Amino acid sequence: MDQTTIRFGIIGCASIAGKVSRAITLAPNAALHAVGSRSLEKAIKFAADNGFPPHAKIYGSYEAVLDDPDVDAVYIPIPTSMHVQWAVLAAEKKKHVLLEKPVALNAAEFDKIIEACEANGVQLMDGTQWIHFPRTAEMGKFLSDDQSFGKLKSVNTLITYDVGPEFLKNDIRSKPDLDGLGALGDGGWYGASASLWATNYELPQKVVALHEPVLNEAGVILSCGASLHWKDGRIATFYCSFLSNFTLDMTAIGTQGTLRVHDFVVPCKEDEASFSSSSGWFVKPSVHTISTDLPQEAFMVKEFSRLVQEIKFNGAKPDNKWPIMSRKTQVILDAVKTSIETGFLPIQIQN
Amino acid sequence: MDQTTIRFGIIGCASIAGKVSRAITLAPNAALHAVGSRSLEKAIKFAADNGFPPHAKIYGSYEAVLDDPDVDAVYIPIPTSMHVQWAVLAAEKKKHVLLEKPVALNAAEFDKIIEACEANGVQLMDGTQWIHFPRTAEMGKFLSDDQSFGKLKSVNTLITYDVGPEFLKNDIRSKPDLDGLGALGDGGWYGASASLWATNYELPQKVVALHEPVLNEAGVILSCGASLHWKDGRIATFYCSFLSNFTLDMTAIGTQGTLRVHDFVVPCKEDEASFSSSSGWFVKPSVHTISTDLPQEAFMVKEFSRLVQEIKFNGAKPDNKWPIMSRKTQVILDAVKTSIETGFLPIQIQN
Repeated sequence: MDQTTIRFGIIGCASIAGKVSRAITLAPNAALHAVGSRSLEKAIKFAADNGFPPHAKIYGSYEAVLDDPDVDAVYIPIPTSMHVQWAVLAAEKKKHVLLEKPVALNAAEFDKIIEACEANGVQLMDGTQWIHFPRTAEMGKFLSDDQSFGKLKSVNTLITYDVGPEFLKNDIRSKPDLDGLGALGDGGWYGASASLWATNYELPQKVVALHEPVLNEAGVILSCGASLHWKDGRIATFYCSFLSNFTLDMTAIGTQGTLRVHDFVVPCKEDEASFSSSSGWFVKPSVHTISTDLPQEAFMVKEFSRLVQEIKFNGAKPDNKWPIMSRKTQVILDAVKTSIETGFLPIQIQN
Repeated sequence: MDQTTIRFGIIGCASIAGKVSRAITLAPNAALHAVGSRSLEKAIKFAADNGFPPHAKIYGSYEAVLDDPDVDAVYIPIPTSMHVQWAVLAAEKKKHVLLEKPVALNAAEFDKIIEACEANGVQLMDGTQWIHFPRTAEMGKFLSDDQSFGKLKSVNTLITYDVGPEFLKNDIRSKPDLDGLGALGDGGWYGASASLWATNYELPQKVVALHEPVLNEAGVILSCGASLHWKDGRIATFYCSFLSNFTLDMTAIGTQGTLRVHDFVVPCKEDEASFSSSSGWFVKPSVHTISTDLPQEAFMVKEFSRLVQEIKFNGAKPDNKWPIMSRKTQVILDAVKTSIETGFLPIQIQN
């Protein structure tokens, strides 16, 4: 750890926090510095289980992490309903913010987080990992190849996993007061982010939810889908579910080529991932395999830490590309939710 | 050719007829006997180009084929708008009917064909080839495996091809008075048939078209999509287009497993085809490859001819499984079309 290493504090001990803690230890420019939970006991156990160094600070509150002057950045994996409160406070304490997705319960809430980060000059990035993975850049090269892919016409994503009865009963993602967007906020976030990624983050003009979403008794979405419509006939469709076998597929079709990937959200293997491409009639897809030295979440931490280093040591401004991407993704989720609530009306998107 | 070989007459010389003519020569229980076109010249050229035997009858009209007493069965590849007239007449002339898809412009029209075939005791089958391919039976085994696939939750199909400007201008599938269903009748037929196949031909309760279909100036559909909804949350979605790269994907997701196939309508290779299966979290899909001795269209001809043989030589009745499957597929296309025409209203399906 050198002088430029970014020191992370983690608030909350969700299971995803274990994965990102490991990523912080793996990223060459980041280090674990502190963890805080409302239960000190939980924080102690979390630190012991997740490779925190002996000198790490372990706190019995979130505030204490934000008040630690040696913390450069906080990773916030707590339930979505608590994001606005804690992300805004983190920004006010001049901590850079790596915020788990979905970033907020709606875009208006997220705007408060953006404002706080802008006012305090701190970097904001959401926890969408796949965007940072080298495979994604390779897929992007294929999509921008006029010869072999042509113009994008459609994107289809299927993001499903069978979460099991324990999750359906007790996980925060099945509680309306915690992660009230349910499968839409979880898998649907990736459907929306993939659709935006493939269209270079151009917002669609119209979003329509598919009929017959499945809700639990408390009204939380367990499965749903939507279609997104851009001008000149481009379309994206996604389907997300907590009730089906593990499937993380994206298929993007252009005028000249087709991209297929079966584990786009999280690769089946950490150090190797593939996608396929095909162009033309009756062409068997070609498989492209990319090897990496870090898991995708470490690429995310590395990029976030690089931006924080630029701000801290080189006087750079926060890169607002990332909060803009997050906000557009959230806008799509909001529209899907509104469409469901209004009986599947098409929702016009303000550009 | 033995005494039990089924002798085919072909009416019309569409390009698909060349493929099916070859299939008739390859199927062990079928033979080419006659071809008729409204242009004798065209029929002569077609017979020469497509391996008709020297003794084959070549006619300058469709009627002459139907009047040939040695013709057991006719294959009808003429434009959809002409199906009802010629399929009914063929049945009345006691010819068994292999009818290209889409079977009719709507289910009410198709009912006239069903009635004529029933009244005259002839077999009726549509030209959906993939259903007959041995790979499909293998995929079906996976879908019916309670352990590795579980209960079906969703089916997604993408059936697209870039037909090119010449087709868009001149092909019958872009003319409202010929194949007025356009991409819906062509690719959409496969989306509907795959959805029905995966649900054991249980009709959905509700069909809703996706917004923003692309139509040509004459109102023929060039791309569209739909969602199909069964009770207990099962869903199928399809997207079909004449304007995108060649893609023939089906993904069926159950509670325990996922089936993926990238060329389900027509395999990239004639003698070998594959699909993949996976069950559980972070499982890399297993590829299953099936080798065959015939192209899929020959399996279709063989099965159709077997049924005709049973009727002709063993006194069997026509198998009404096939027209029932065709009709259900047509019912779904009709509902998608109605949904588009009514501003994307959900269309209830009568069971």
